[in-house]
Amino acid sequence: MTQMIKSKAAVAWGPGQPLSIEEVDVMPPQAGEVLVRVVASGVCHTDAFTLSGDDPEGIFPSILGHEGGGIVEAVGEGVTSVAVGDHVIPLYTPECGECKFCRSGKTNLCGKIRETQGKGLMPDGTTRFYKDGQPIHHFMGCSTFSEYTVLPEISLAKVDKAAPLEEVCLLGCGVTTGMGAVMNTAKVEEGASVAIFGLGGIGLSAVIGATMARAGRIIAIDINESKFELARQLGATDCINPKDYDKPIQEVIVDLTDGGVDYSFECIGNVDVMRSALECCHKGWGESVIIGVAGAGQEISTRPFQLVTGRVWRGTAFGGVKGRSELPAIVERYLSGEFKLNDFITHTMGLEEINEAFDLMHRGESIRSVIHFDQ
Amino acid sequence: MTQMIKSKAAVAWGPGQPLSIEEVDVMPPQAGEVLVRVVASGVCHTDAFTLSGDDPEGIFPSILGHEGGGIVEAVGEGVTSVAVGDHVIPLYTPECGECKFCRSGKTNLCGKIRETQGKGLMPDGTTRFYKDGQPIHHFMGCSTFSEYTVLPEISLAKVDKAAPLEEVCLLGCGVTTGMGAVMNTAKVEEGASVAIFGLGGIGLSAVIGATMARAGRIIAIDINESKFELARQLGATDCINPKDYDKPIQEVIVDLTDGGVDYSFECIGNVDVMRSALECCHKGWGESVIIGVAGAGQEISTRPFQLVTGRVWRGTAFGGVKGRSELPAIVERYLSGEFKLNDFITHTMGLEEINEAFDLMHRGESIRSVIHFDQ
Repeated sequence: MTQMIKSKAAVAWGPGQPLSIEEVDVMPPQAGEVLVRVVASGVCHTDAFTLSGDDPEGIFPSILGHEGGGIVEAVGEGVTSVAVGDHVIPLYTPECGECKFCRSGKTNLCGKIRETQGKGLMPDGTTRFYKDGQPIHHFMGCSTFSEYTVLPEISLAKVDKAAPLEEVCLLGCGVTTGMGAVMNTAKVEEGASVAIFGLGGIGLSAVIGATMARAGRIIAIDINESKFELARQLGATDCINPKDYDKPIQEVIVDLTDGGVDYSFECIGNVDVMRSALECCHKGWGESVIIGVAGAGQEISTRPFQLVTGRVWRGTAFGGVKGRSELPAIVERYLSGEFKLNDFITHTMGLEEINEAFDLMHRGESIRSVIHFDQ
Repeated sequence: MTQMIKSKAAVAWGPGQPLSIEEVDVMPPQAGEVLVRVVASGVCHTDAFTLSGDDPEGIFPSILGHEGGGIVEAVGEGVTSVAVGDHVIPLYTPECGECKFCRSGKTNLCGKIRETQGKGLMPDGTTRFYKDGQPIHHFMGCSTFSEYTVLPEISLAKVDKAAPLEEVCLLGCGVTTGMGAVMNTAKVEEGASVAIFGLGGIGLSAVIGATMARAGRIIAIDINESKFELARQLGATDCINPKDYDKPIQEVIVDLTDGGVDYSFECIGNVDVMRSALECCHKGWGESVIIGVAGAGQEISTRPFQLVTGRVWRGTAFGGVKGRSELPAIVERYLSGEFKLNDFITHTMGLEEINEAFDLMHRGESIRSVIHFDQ
């Protein structure tokens, strides 16, 4: 395939503006690249963060979206690991298998295309999207708010065709991030106590992960009590609203748990909550995992005594999951019924309604809105 | 033994005052307690910190000292694990084997007598030291700046009589803390790169630990270059003075190591250095361990991005070593020649000269001064 094609896409022309539905030109995939027809894409907080203009690394114009599911439409020269017709989940954290990060065996943070991806470009330093001749940037290496998108081969996880792309698209970001943080990064063991701060898609996914890990106590914390019913359905044993207490939430949790939890997870991106999450951990062994992305320049703080007395502070990106080698197995666990995804999908809509998805998110009314491209 | 005895001791009557050599009364050991004749005691920064008045939990009058070696002189009712004549190292971190911390298997922070120890008292809430009828407090459960001291049985590690107490007393704090941080807390593996901030007794012990762990690169950092020769002798491969550079030391180390070190250790107690130590770690897997004790109320900070991209921040107390069950084996490794202690002992003196030991420390001229009680 050497011709450009036309694609319907939601373009972010500038910070703070609604997305604009356009017909864009998509250039053919180059060597090592793959053209994907996007079937569905979740709308995630990170898309909203960049769109808002608060992300200092945000680039415009661009096509946002990074939580998608699609089908391989064409492959560039040398592509061997996926073929036309394969079902794929785009990966904003690729897995080249060759860089020192991949070879380390210690992290999923592949470094192969980090630099160009951060600039909104393909690995060769150019873009595949144009509108009337004007280049439009890629976003997180995915740009799933376009009917057709181009990705590097190393940024695609090939998954079982039996899995509905309208649901497993959520494994492209939020759900894998929350579940993976619990199971891969923290390695929560059976019977452990867990505190989960923030019950958006990631926090609820962390609840699922804790349930799958057979945690003994799962404390879910949010100031929006409308999230509690689903949290309980997914396995939360205690739901707490910090506004119900006069003292810091970490003290409430320490009291509830006779000294603190074994593991905590911050799923919001609020640096004050990150501190609470660390400090609600048990002396001697409690580990806190930061999942949420904080605003530019914000910092976390605590007294070093918290660490010297045995607490551990860590973070995770994409739940520590290596996309190409590990995500297909998570899809299989989904297919075998170990966890459900439809609980998370509170709204579906066509691409034309995508700005409504952002509004629902900002009003706290959705967990996930999923864009269906065939609508 | 039911009679009180007289003991020569260095008493801290108040913050900021020199220690005063006094003859104090030592009460006999009660049930579960042991009277120890102290043979030697190192003088550590923590003693100086409390004496300075900067330690908000400092209590006066008290008998400082927590890095000692001694011989059991008498035992109280029910004591079974040590007997008269045994050689022992006092433990400021006891090991009861029964509390939830000891039973967890995850930490050395025994909680059994924490509360009374923090108040400068024996577990029954009283003191064993008096001067002219005035009670004098214990310090860190040890008070080794006294010819005779009383400790709970659970605060004594029984060690091989072949080990010279004038040297292995250093295993009661600094050396075990530094070595243990590397080997127990961080579990540095063969070939790993390591950065050690601060080349006092703890930092140099961390160098020894890294050498014993066969780390591939050991970067030692201090602003006092007079420490570098010994650091190199002990195995440091690079010695760096941050004052030689115009950029932050973490950037220097990241450049030197193609991305950062696998492990770093803060051995000073400076919260800014703690941040540098975290941020010089390699993305994806670098772990930083806080060993130093910061001033009251001081806080550590960093951008959460540092953790989200795979760095881990932890701390350690007494090197994560469980004193009663693990310290005797460290003494055996010393006896077998795996590491030396006399490199650390730059000065020895009698108890009467103890204030000179503090002066040497403040001037940066000593690594460790050791008090010999038979002088």
